[in-house]
Amino acid sequence: MKINNIHYRTLWLNEDGWSVNTFDQTQLPHAVQIIQLRTLADAATTISTMQVRGAPLIGATAAYGMALAARENPSDDALEQAYQVLYKTRPTAVNLRWALDTMHTLLAPLAANQRASAAYQRAGEICEQDVAICAAIGQHGLTLIQDIAQRKPKGEPVNILTHCNAGWLATLDWGTATAPIYQAHAAGIAVHVWVDETRPRSQGLLTAFELGQHGVPHTYIVDNTGGHLMQHGLVDLCIVGTDRTTADGDVANKIGTYLKALAAKDNQVPFYVALPSTTIDWTVHDGVKEIPIEQRSSREVCEITGQDETGKIAAVRITPSTTAVANYAFDVTPARLITGLITERGIATASRAGLAKLFPEYSRTQTPSTNH
Amino acid sequence: MKINNIHYRTLWLNEDGWSVNTFDQTQLPHAVQIIQLRTLADAATTISTMQVRGAPLIGATAAYGMALAARENPSDDALEQAYQVLYKTRPTAVNLRWALDTMHTLLAPLAANQRASAAYQRAGEICEQDVAICAAIGQHGLTLIQDIAQRKPKGEPVNILTHCNAGWLATLDWGTATAPIYQAHAAGIAVHVWVDETRPRSQGLLTAFELGQHGVPHTYIVDNTGGHLMQHGLVDLCIVGTDRTTADGDVANKIGTYLKALAAKDNQVPFYVALPSTTIDWTVHDGVKEIPIEQRSSREVCEITGQDETGKIAAVRITPSTTAVANYAFDVTPARLITGLITERGIATASRAGLAKLFPEYSRTQTPSTNH
Repeated sequence: MKINNIHYRTLWLNEDGWSVNTFDQTQLPHAVQIIQLRTLADAATTISTMQVRGAPLIGATAAYGMALAARENPSDDALEQAYQVLYKTRPTAVNLRWALDTMHTLLAPLAANQRASAAYQRAGEICEQDVAICAAIGQHGLTLIQDIAQRKPKGEPVNILTHCNAGWLATLDWGTATAPIYQAHAAGIAVHVWVDETRPRSQGLLTAFELGQHGVPHTYIVDNTGGHLMQHGLVDLCIVGTDRTTADGDVANKIGTYLKALAAKDNQVPFYVALPSTTIDWTVHDGVKEIPIEQRSSREVCEITGQDETGKIAAVRITPSTTAVANYAFDVTPARLITGLITERGIATASRAGLAKLFPEYSRTQTPSTNH
Repeated sequence: MKINNIHYRTLWLNEDGWSVNTFDQTQLPHAVQIIQLRTLADAATTISTMQVRGAPLIGATAAYGMALAARENPSDDALEQAYQVLYKTRPTAVNLRWALDTMHTLLAPLAANQRASAAYQRAGEICEQDVAICAAIGQHGLTLIQDIAQRKPKGEPVNILTHCNAGWLATLDWGTATAPIYQAHAAGIAVHVWVDETRPRSQGLLTAFELGQHGVPHTYIVDNTGGHLMQHGLVDLCIVGTDRTTADGDVANKIGTYLKALAAKDNQVPFYVALPSTTIDWTVHDGVKEIPIEQRSSREVCEITGQDETGKIAAVRITPSTTAVANYAFDVTPARLITGLITERGIATASRAGLAKLFPEYSRTQTPSTNH
């Protein structure tokens, strides 16, 4: 997608053939700063300080981190150490673990002098694969937007509401929830996006930034607003991402997703979830009962960062230090509220049968959990 | 209610018998500053700069503003001018208009030398009446909390979720949505309040402040959180306020109220609205269709105020200046989602029949609107 009219991915190999560039997302949306990763330590710091975020981008950065490490020192010891250093940056990130395991499995059997080139090749493939998956999600989701556009009076945009940032900044390109929107924009369909702020971390700022840079009309709203918009016919379609999808089609996504799904149901607005099939956990069925919800630091709620009157990035504390604060990071949207799941293989109904039809190879290998 | 262990109202006559004190709510929750109103101009500034807020408190401040004006200059011209000055401070505030009309109707026929004392007496009565109404709402709502407390295991608090600040800071004392909570606390029932942040203006900060000062256990949460809490049995009861209630029991309240009502319905959590009957608009029936929703300045969304690292109150801008922002102030919760309306006369079902039973004198005088 574009920033300042230039097409970028979120991570790319430099012309030198070995160093890697990415954007410092902690500076967004206030400043666009490219950072160059030249060492294993650079890659690790970039992940741990959340300069990169989003499961696919974290995985890709870790893969290139292994390549940078192999270039620095291709020995067995260094390979093991690189794995540990990168793993500790965000130990709960499933995609990070997957990328590191993929790289380790590839590199460990190779002779030391073959490791660096193999690592760069595999890291590049991981990136290409992510782009292909997101592009496919976009193509399938595009059909939904086309259908709505055909039913609307000519010239009226299709109004799409999204929550959090399941955008290209969280992936290599296209994003997940945003992929159908970018594809519709590219196809010349008029779209307008309602961007939920998504407190406490306000990732809606990233969504507004990337849509704005790519030229997609959008409006930033506080999280309380979506229900009112849907009551008044101002939303044609909701598309959100997911952190974890159950085999029965329940979706764990950023806190507040469930409230928007309820409003969509109450107003007959179609509610879709876009996801790469890697987010499906075939061992989990009832999301509300089975998925534990992480509680994060109260600082995310209490401190808000922005530009002060001099333009400098600064934080203010909004609650007195004595105020008790709870910060649940995710909630679960039950499948009954979800119109469909947009995957790289097509659109499934949010149900065990719907997912099994698109992914027979996974659903067959799992028995239902006993507590369901 | 209490601040620093001293019982206060939000507005009170000083011992000098003529000047009036209130809290500067623009400094809350970071600093408790009492301001003294000595002139008509003081009263007008206090309202227009939102140092006082909340319909009942604005009305009472305006009433005392008329008294201060009559003390300064009791002439006919000055009386008319005081009305205009105060009316212009917040021209859309229904309660302001009501208080000014009440004072004007009383004072206009009186001789100039009788006006000041009559004005002070009536302003005092307006305050007492508000306290009595809120206390009665509290007594009726208390029965709901008592019933839940009796069904819960001993020692477990009754968990109540509220949105925005329908607290004592918006009234003279007790508040509306908070009145049952304060009465339960006074009666020795263990309560715990989930305080919605209520973006964009984050009035949850005021609710957390007043609950904290009065010693009521509470937890501050972002607006996205309530649905998750209700899914997991962590909310026993919702109580919110209302800006405008229709004759059929629909409720226009701070944006986001509707989303919480949907979640309550989906999880069988009772959802109550507390209101003085003065907020009932007997001429309006279908709230979603008939109540126009005010859009306010995007600054409320884009700029956030708190304490900077030196402890000074400062604002940061969270969105780039190019980002389009919408700021709808209220939404409408349909009566079908509301378990009951807690009024000063008792608890009504949210329906025309329910309200007519408690307020027969109003409901009889109105014919249904033709577009219903």
